[in-house]
Amino acid sequence: MHLEDFLTEQWMNDHENDAVYNLTDTCVQPLRFPELLAMDEDGVLQDVLLDYGVITGDVRLKQEILKLYQSGTADNITLTHGCLAANELVMYTFLKAGDRVVSFTPGYQQFTSLPASFGCHVHTIPLKEEKGWMMEEADLQKAFEENVRMLIINNPNNPTGTFFDKPMLEKLIGYCRKYNTILLSDEVYRGNDPREVSVSDLYAYGISTGSLSKMFSLAGLRLGWIKADASLIAKINVRRDYSFISTGPLADAMAYIAMKKQDALMLRSRKIIEENKQIYAEWLKDMPYASLCMPSYGPVGFLRYEADIDDRTLALRLLKEHGVFFVPGSCFGKDRHFRIGFTRDPHETAEGLRILRNVLYELNQK
Amino acid sequence: MHLEDFLTEQWMNDHENDAVYNLTDTCVQPLRFPELLAMDEDGVLQDVLLDYGVITGDVRLKQEILKLYQSGTADNITLTHGCLAANELVMYTFLKAGDRVVSFTPGYQQFTSLPASFGCHVHTIPLKEEKGWMMEEADLQKAFEENVRMLIINNPNNPTGTFFDKPMLEKLIGYCRKYNTILLSDEVYRGNDPREVSVSDLYAYGISTGSLSKMFSLAGLRLGWIKADASLIAKINVRRDYSFISTGPLADAMAYIAMKKQDALMLRSRKIIEENKQIYAEWLKDMPYASLCMPSYGPVGFLRYEADIDDRTLALRLLKEHGVFFVPGSCFGKDRHFRIGFTRDPHETAEGLRILRNVLYELNQK
Repeated sequence: MHLEDFLTEQWMNDHENDAVYNLTDTCVQPLRFPELLAMDEDGVLQDVLLDYGVITGDVRLKQEILKLYQSGTADNITLTHGCLAANELVMYTFLKAGDRVVSFTPGYQQFTSLPASFGCHVHTIPLKEEKGWMMEEADLQKAFEENVRMLIINNPNNPTGTFFDKPMLEKLIGYCRKYNTILLSDEVYRGNDPREVSVSDLYAYGISTGSLSKMFSLAGLRLGWIKADASLIAKINVRRDYSFISTGPLADAMAYIAMKKQDALMLRSRKIIEENKQIYAEWLKDMPYASLCMPSYGPVGFLRYEADIDDRTLALRLLKEHGVFFVPGSCFGKDRHFRIGFTRDPHETAEGLRILRNVLYELNQK
Repeated sequence: MHLEDFLTEQWMNDHENDAVYNLTDTCVQPLRFPELLAMDEDGVLQDVLLDYGVITGDVRLKQEILKLYQSGTADNITLTHGCLAANELVMYTFLKAGDRVVSFTPGYQQFTSLPASFGCHVHTIPLKEEKGWMMEEADLQKAFEENVRMLIINNPNNPTGTFFDKPMLEKLIGYCRKYNTILLSDEVYRGNDPREVSVSDLYAYGISTGSLSKMFSLAGLRLGWIKADASLIAKINVRRDYSFISTGPLADAMAYIAMKKQDALMLRSRKIIEENKQIYAEWLKDMPYASLCMPSYGPVGFLRYEADIDDRTLALRLLKEHGVFFVPGSCFGKDRHFRIGFTRDPHETAEGLRILRNVLYELNQK
């Protein structure tokens, strides 16, 4: 099956290791393995036998994950190796060649290129910067003039930070009800603020995916999940048997240990995100060559700059000459932008932005 | 995409936890997590930061994996979450609707049902019990009368234990060369005997998959790999970016620690397999109602029984009344057989076989 190169991921793969000031990573400051081991106060890990474990996942972990939702039992969850794998599994389970899929742009390329690779017709709705990275209602209406098999959103959205609150989700669900459209919502950047509602708590065909990688600072466990109606989870598990046997008892147990402390981890992440956002807010006050729609939730934003240079060239120059690392917006189909993450040590962010300021002034005074 | 239920995996999921005498598991006696931790003599795990790690996998681990092969560098390997995921990734990368795929039966259902689910034409060649679970040359010739995009083998084969030695692999490769057919060889049951040759060491379009789950007793790490020509690996990595980001620095580091001791682990496994095989050999000497083509390599065999009862019913009765657990052959399309694993503590095997003997005698005296 023909598949486009995944521009963002390839950019990360090719360049991330050269970063001194990584202003683009969306994982909130990862923990170290000894920090995780120290959380195992009850010695859960001592008992782990390294077989396949419970095939659809450790029920204790599922119970902890359910605390992020307003409804559901263990039957509403299946575990995966991260959120990307969760999304892929949902797409392979419910889509076939010829199906119509709707998503947003700028958005995460998996949502469009992957279904296109197996013959789906993909329609994208623009998110408009001048509207605070929101769509026009007319574009949504138009998208739903024909049968839509799956609407794919990312809430909050990578890269724009667009956040769909409950009224907006209910609007989307209103359209979805017309055709019983599956609403796949990648909620990997979702926190636990009560206003951050999950589609899986609102709609029978709402499928939420998530992971420990971003807000829980544990990408290294490669642990994600799908939450949906039990009948949808049962269908997903049929295909899951062909993709991987289980996420394994070790990753499950470690995730369980961490998720027992989910409130503390989430608090830590929010503090880091807020500190980073404040640094950006200060920086932007006195910066005529850049702008940012500051997102309400999540660790991701999309910075616009003014300078007569395309974003791939500028990003490479910043990296090679100064060690400042961004994913260019053109990896998401939008030039003159950088995807930013409010995830790093504030000193790293501040120093990276100081360098970016100098470079943008220099470029604009030529 | 319509996909058949994966019979073997579902059987395992539904029933494995009820087993007292598990005579069917194909993972050689799994290690416990503390045993793995104790192998970390150099404190490798102390330094693990729980981010995504190296995206295509830890190079130190790749170097250890390469010791299982006769050729290759780190560019010939990409890491996956187990061998099933490795096979899936190879199929999605190189197959499309309409392609012709050839495999063997009885065999692992993923090789046939998965490509069929996205529109491939799947042709199976029978492995014949009366020929020691080998195919007829004429059937192979016939399969290659048309263009074959991919030939999928499992070497040694689950469930029959069929082993393709170097001359036999070269015969298969001879057919493959006719169309530059990709030869995907699931080598998850392969050991490190020099006679257990990998297709990736013999043929430019030979793709070997493997994992730590079976012969290395570490299914719990969910760590597998693909080995192939670097140009094929590069193509696989394009799709891999859409499936999962990485296997993660923790699983990679743990696998590295284990694979540094690969000779000791393999020796342990071979000893367990040999002990189990001897118990079967003794048992069969005096058993008119069962037969087995004893496999040369690997932990898997396919036991035939004589009794007027189908294998699903008998397997369920053995489990419910006696705790003796087998996957019925009909999960692989072959009734009146049980898939067996030479993997357990010899006492467990002996006791399970003692019970099976009694049940088979009883059934044949009615």
